Amino acid sequence: MKTPSLFAASVVAAAGLALASWSVVADEPITPIRPVQEINLAQVALGKKLYFDPRLSKSGFISCNSCHNLSMGGTDNLQTSIGDHWHKGPINAPTVLNSSLNVAQFWDGRAKDLQAQAGGPIANPGEMGFSHTLAVGVLESIPEYVVEFKQVFGTDKITIDEVTQAIAEFEKTLKTPNARFDRWLLGEKDAITPYELAGYQLFKTSGCVACHNGEGVGGSSFQKMGVVKPYETHNPAVGRAAVTGKDADRFKFKVPTLRNVELTYPYFHDGAARTLSEAVEIMGRLQLGKELTPDENAKIVAFLKTLTGDQPQFLMPILPPSTDKTPPPKPFD
Amino acid sequence: MKTPSLFAASVVAAAGLALASWSVVADEPITPIRPVQEINLAQVALGKKLYFDPRLSKSGFISCNSCHNLSMGGTDNLQTSIGDHWHKGPINAPTVLNSSLNVAQFWDGRAKDLQAQAGGPIANPGEMGFSHTLAVGVLESIPEYVVEFKQVFGTDKITIDEVTQAIAEFEKTLKTPNARFDRWLLGEKDAITPYELAGYQLFKTSGCVACHNGEGVGGSSFQKMGVVKPYETHNPAVGRAAVTGKDADRFKFKVPTLRNVELTYPYFHDGAARTLSEAVEIMGRLQLGKELTPDENAKIVAFLKTLTGDQPQFLMPILPPSTDKTPPPKPFD
Repeated sequence: MKTPSLFAASVVAAAGLALASWSVVADEPITPIRPVQEINLAQVALGKKLYFDPRLSKSGFISCNSCHNLSMGGTDNLQTSIGDHWHKGPINAPTVLNSSLNVAQFWDGRAKDLQAQAGGPIANPGEMGFSHTLAVGVLESIPEYVVEFKQVFGTDKITIDEVTQAIAEFEKTLKTPNARFDRWLLGEKDAITPYELAGYQLFKTSGCVACHNGEGVGGSSFQKMGVVKPYETHNPAVGRAAVTGKDADRFKFKVPTLRNVELTYPYFHDGAARTLSEAVEIMGRLQLGKELTPDENAKIVAFLKTLTGDQPQFLMPILPPSTDKTPPPKPFD
Repeated sequence: MKTPSLFAASVVAAAGLALASWSVVADEPITPIRPVQEINLAQVALGKKLYFDPRLSKSGFISCNSCHNLSMGGTDNLQTSIGDHWHKGPINAPTVLNSSLNVAQFWDGRAKDLQAQAGGPIANPGEMGFSHTLAVGVLESIPEYVVEFKQVFGTDKITIDEVTQAIAEFEKTLKTPNARFDRWLLGEKDAITPYELAGYQLFKTSGCVACHNGEGVGGSSFQKMGVVKPYETHNPAVGRAAVTGKDADRFKFKVPTLRNVELTYPYFHDGAARTLSEAVEIMGRLQLGKELTPDENAKIVAFLKTLTGDQPQFLMPILPPSTDKTPPPKPFD
């Protein structure tokens, strides 16, 4: 069968943008998303296939895209995710969009980068339920993958490091430039309404921007969930303390990006806040000690919706077929 | 957020083909796939979103594409499918590719066309586990869908008939023209090898072509599974008899299309044959009373692989987000 080389459309678009001069007009704590740069396109093309390939799971049913669905803001829009054998995941799936901007990956930051993250779910019994060895074995049984790995990495043997490297490279292309707020930052004064701008002013004066800033509007630090008042949840996750072992890090979680937050509901590590309005209310009360009025809340929500950027657009990958030698998936074992 | 109008690339390609004169050179029992024609593009664009939207399931996790995956030959490549709460499906998921050519839908033909089929899995407790009323309720809570249904159907109220009509219209675009065998049929003599051609001759002289013929290379009749010798299976499906109530229709199943059969493993209604070689061996023995030699088997398999056509290529749809009024999915109830 034919497998045309498909590159993420966003990469092509980004290449064009990079030629333009890049000067931010507004001096603001939030900065526009920069175009994707320094990408290995061959790795991206391979990584896209792997991202969509459910044969990296034991069941043959779950791919990266199952829980980080690129049709739905890079999330599954579930409180917590569904894994192998319908396992109920322990935590809300963060968006993959703009995740290359994060200081680290996972809510507790236990993976230092996208490549370190990508191997986690494959081998997690409650997620894809497979093993790295078995996943690589499946890929090695498919000649088209063997040839493509050889082209991309120049090696005869497929390794899990190459698999995760290619997936991570694809994920780096999943930036969402051109949000209305970014266009405003870049000087297009009509890109947001006065009402939305008032929301942004409130976002700054209320203190939200202390953690939600920079290119990712978050993602750059770990902060305690429940600063002024404790956050009540049945979710047992302890956050950063699980990584550092320090009691001081209990309930510290990576500050999530607010890019595309309109699309990434429900909110918080436990997915307990269904709506943006609810999330803003809780954040104001627990993190900032502020009871926002309904009008203030609505304005901030309106501002947050200006952070929805151009979603990555690309051709769905066509995956190379398994062969007689490919170990069959085992969804019901 | 932006939702650009995306049309299936295959439609555009087909429009080009339609301009060429259409004359089949070879007089053969198999005919080339004809270009997609008389399509409602607005319905296709809407239907594509719905096809990929897991919010048509109770869990918010399963879409049409979950089991009829367009990255994998329009199937899930599982023996039987995974449904709501990891329910083990009763039968192998047939490919959606070229399914508009089928005499009816489902293995037992209980749906007369694609529209009648599309409503089935949504409301099946073991598949998407939802109800038509609840699915429509979700769509009605999403303003972008409300507007698009109004544009496409000219009505204020979304109905399940419109939902299934749009999905069916999208599915009609999922044809796979330009297989090497079709190019051979159309006069390109080098499109298949002498070895593959020998396989085709065997396919005809052995009698396979009696059922697997026409544009779909199957899909046009119901035939008994186990004509010469009984087919042994643990699968309880009785086939066409479940629809007609006639004992004479027991174990009669819709003859599956062999288009893209290289991609649609495993085979048969119970998914018991893992490889094409195994499927050909069993078909020869049980349907035709023939013990094919390994060489004959290999030649027929080689021919079958020439039936892989151009896979539908299109931009992944970006789905409109839920709103505060959208009933949340219930994956774990």
